[in-house]
Amino acid sequence: MPAPIRISTLAARFGASAHGEDVLVVRVASLESAGPDALTFLANPRFKPLLESSAAGVVVVRATDAVGLRRPHVIAKDPYLFYAQAAQLLYPQRTANPGIHSSACVDPSARVSDAAEIGPNVVIGAGSVVGAGCIIMANSYVGARVELGDDVLLHPTVTLMDDCQIGSRVIVHPGAVLGGDGFGNAWAGDHWEKIPQVGRVVIGDDVEIGANTTIDRGALEDTVIGSGARIDNLIQIAHNVEIGAHTALAGCVGIAGSTKIGARCQIGGAAMISGHLEICDGAVVLGGTLVAKSIREPGAYGGPYPMQAHGDWVKNAAQLRHLGELAQRVKQLEKTMASLSVATGENE
Amino acid sequence: MPAPIRISTLAARFGASAHGEDVLVVRVASLESAGPDALTFLANPRFKPLLESSAAGVVVVRATDAVGLRRPHVIAKDPYLFYAQAAQLLYPQRTANPGIHSSACVDPSARVSDAAEIGPNVVIGAGSVVGAGCIIMANSYVGARVELGDDVLLHPTVTLMDDCQIGSRVIVHPGAVLGGDGFGNAWAGDHWEKIPQVGRVVIGDDVEIGANTTIDRGALEDTVIGSGARIDNLIQIAHNVEIGAHTALAGCVGIAGSTKIGARCQIGGAAMISGHLEICDGAVVLGGTLVAKSIREPGAYGGPYPMQAHGDWVKNAAQLRHLGELAQRVKQLEKTMASLSVATGENE
Amino acid sequence: MPAPIRISTLAARFGASAHGEDVLVVRVASLESAGPDALTFLANPRFKPLLESSAAGVVVVRATDAVGLRRPHVIAKDPYLFYAQAAQLLYPQRTANPGIHSSACVDPSARVSDAAEIGPNVVIGAGSVVGAGCIIMANSYVGARVELGDDVLLHPTVTLMDDCQIGSRVIVHPGAVLGGDGFGNAWAGDHWEKIPQVGRVVIGDDVEIGANTTIDRGALEDTVIGSGARIDNLIQIAHNVEIGAHTALAGCVGIAGSTKIGARCQIGGAAMISGHLEICDGAVVLGGTLVAKSIREPGAYGGPYPMQAHGDWVKNAAQLRHLGELAQRVKQLEKTMASLSVATGENE
Repeated sequence: MPAPIRISTLAARFGASAHGEDVLVVRVASLESAGPDALTFLANPRFKPLLESSAAGVVVVRATDAVGLRRPHVIAKDPYLFYAQAAQLLYPQRTANPGIHSSACVDPSARVSDAAEIGPNVVIGAGSVVGAGCIIMANSYVGARVELGDDVLLHPTVTLMDDCQIGSRVIVHPGAVLGGDGFGNAWAGDHWEKIPQVGRVVIGDDVEIGANTTIDRGALEDTVIGSGARIDNLIQIAHNVEIGAHTALAGCVGIAGSTKIGARCQIGGAAMISGHLEICDGAVVLGGTLVAKSIREPGAYGGPYPMQAHGDWVKNAAQLRHLGELAQRVKQLEKTMASLSVATGENE
Repeated sequence: MPAPIRISTLAARFGASAHGEDVLVVRVASLESAGPDALTFLANPRFKPLLESSAAGVVVVRATDAVGLRRPHVIAKDPYLFYAQAAQLLYPQRTANPGIHSSACVDPSARVSDAAEIGPNVVIGAGSVVGAGCIIMANSYVGARVELGDDVLLHPTVTLMDDCQIGSRVIVHPGAVLGGDGFGNAWAGDHWEKIPQVGRVVIGDDVEIGANTTIDRGALEDTVIGSGARIDNLIQIAHNVEIGAHTALAGCVGIAGSTKIGARCQIGGAAMISGHLEICDGAVVLGGTLVAKSIREPGAYGGPYPMQAHGDWVKNAAQLRHLGELAQRVKQLEKTMASLSVATGENE
Repeated sequence: MPAPIRISTLAARFGASAHGEDVLVVRVASLESAGPDALTFLANPRFKPLLESSAAGVVVVRATDAVGLRRPHVIAKDPYLFYAQAAQLLYPQRTANPGIHSSACVDPSARVSDAAEIGPNVVIGAGSVVGAGCIIMANSYVGARVELGDDVLLHPTVTLMDDCQIGSRVIVHPGAVLGGDGFGNAWAGDHWEKIPQVGRVVIGDDVEIGANTTIDRGALEDTVIGSGARIDNLIQIAHNVEIGAHTALAGCVGIAGSTKIGARCQIGGAAMISGHLEICDGAVVLGGTLVAKSIREPGAYGGPYPMQAHGDWVKNAAQLRHLGELAQRVKQLEKTMASLSVATGENE
């Protein structure tokens, strides 16, 4: 448990102002469940009725929500961001407990910083480099010629195949696989010939990669993830994909080979992006969208087929297969109508 | 191999009736491949022609399918359920072979029941509790302060991060990750700030979780899976999701953050459910459906876009983008038609 | 690094012809980045402008692209296939370094070839068989009664549950799980009863299986993957599925239980295929398609709902729910029109 912090200290640190009693907080919690030792926040106006009644020690609000508020509160420009920053202080990430566990297998040619922590059953291959402050947790595998910057956190059971280049302060969640072979096959008339995948996976600084996500090595060039990118769970990133800095991908997204996604994009959950496309900086793709052509202009793009009660959907789906005919029939009606209107003098 | 069982014993045990010779069975098999030592069943009427000819020792049928049947058979109200119960008896789940493998790393502060089995290379963190009859198979990782009830089965390479609370008789298949960080980020103008995820994963009793499925810990509150839920492979369950008792999720489903799914729901494969929704008890979501709004009434909901031959689909997809215009043109036709009808006296 | 090879040698070996200086190559690279020691190829006409200017040692082209080409080149019928074959020669797959790592746990009843390599922390169960030339990399788990042919490569952290039958020259990428229980449950009025999954997973020769993919064991019969099949990352293959020889499945595909897919099919990324279907030999399913009925004729099938700018999509989606009504209104217009035409003599 971290040491309690005064809300005046938090406010000063993150450019906000504290109002009312200068209470000590030790945790963060929701408006409903927060007790007197907890900081909470109001981001969603739906919860405004709970503002005064919440048992929280302090609540972080926008100036407009602070009018008449009698309880201890913090006024911040962006309460959600303030909460994130306060929580980081209250729940600091674990730091390395330097040393190599006796059950780990570290190749003699690997260079592991004395300030790194290598957990049980970890394997580190020939020529790899592990920077200061890195934590490689239990049962993770680091192949040959892998380079980790400083303060990288590999959660348990992470797999980094040969040649992965990882920046500093990267977090990889359990089960993620980086640097597996891309899906490259050439048809040889009666069977597939495997195409050796000789590119690497290159990850910038401050990237977070979710559980059981897979990022394939490049076929010829590298697969590249820009600094600050956020990649959720169960995401497939194929060979030669490039993802720009600070782009966020929600769970279950798939990105096919050689697609380039710009910086500061937001890709909603389960969106599926075809190969060899370009998505410009700042594009927002809604969850569940199938992206089959490039996006050249920033803005929001969507297209999930809407859910209906099953009976309605069955009727609709039947029509869906015949839209071309329906459009043809409307066109024919318009033509007939035009001649009819002439015949009856309707247009005169 | 289990001991052979007489079909009269099975029938008596599970509320059914045995007819014909009281044969011994030792296995279950399909109607096509069953031999004289096997029990099989008829659930799908399509296979009724095989009823008499199957070489099975006994076939389990509904009363209506038993009329005139001369071979040994069992009449059960629900043959599929009877088969499930008989198979459980014939193929009992492996029980713990108590002890801790010499290669396992168990924190001295963890409390592991003497009646639990801990396999090779397993890691168990500080303060964790493992109940009687638990089996933790090879290469699995159990973090700190994790609690497992009795008779939990963790297959190989399962990862339970800190603070997971697991009920009794839970089965977790290989590669599943429970308690990884939820996807919480606040935009700070030019980068994302990580939001520490301080909730837990709480799993009820008798839950089954599929291979490579990921269930994230809560942001503030817990992520909760109700007792008896069945969760298939490669499913993503985001932070703060709640899933009711006995709800079943088929493979490749994704559930975004804070969505609450009721009890006894059935969510078809690859259905994707947006965040902050509520799905009522007893809802059925068809496979491939994108659920972007709450479901308030039990019943079946669908909406996958229907497959077509590629050429037809290209024509249709072109129309799909212009449905608004098409509807507008129909409206215009109706207006013109109405005035025309007046002009020609058609409505009189 | 492999030994350099003359392009005349490569050409002779793979049925192509070398033209110009007989240079030595040691690597493959893209047209843009290749240096004088690299072989590159032109498959996409978009890159034709780079043909003469690329710094590559040699470029592989079709005869039609070779007209007037002054630089060293190879003329091949299928440059992409030639590149694949040349790359296999230049980057040969690692061969086994025979022996069992001291940290591996191999059951005394398992039969492991002296010519196999068993890595750190590998577990091999009772009665399993590992053929000559197999490489089982670190932290992988092989259950009981598993059989591996010769020259199988299990990357790190692969899980093969009991009874898996694996052919020769199979490659399994990290995190893949084969032989986990299928999703079988019978509803017992107020809870699910688990149905023991007693079938196996049977994999042919020369199959490649991607990272974090899951292939469930059969319920009664086996789940079967034909020889030469290519299965990408994060794919779910449910119990009793059968996949024909040389069929390729791109990333994020899901296949529900008991579906049978023929030989030489190509299933695009994120396609989702319902259970109990039959897909004939040679079918091509476009990425993102939901396949809810059997495919009886070879050819291409599609149906992903097209992406639009969000505003356009909102308008369209509103209409999508009312297609049945729209079709009804068009039908009514046609009827009225027909009677009007009669009234005005338009059709005479």
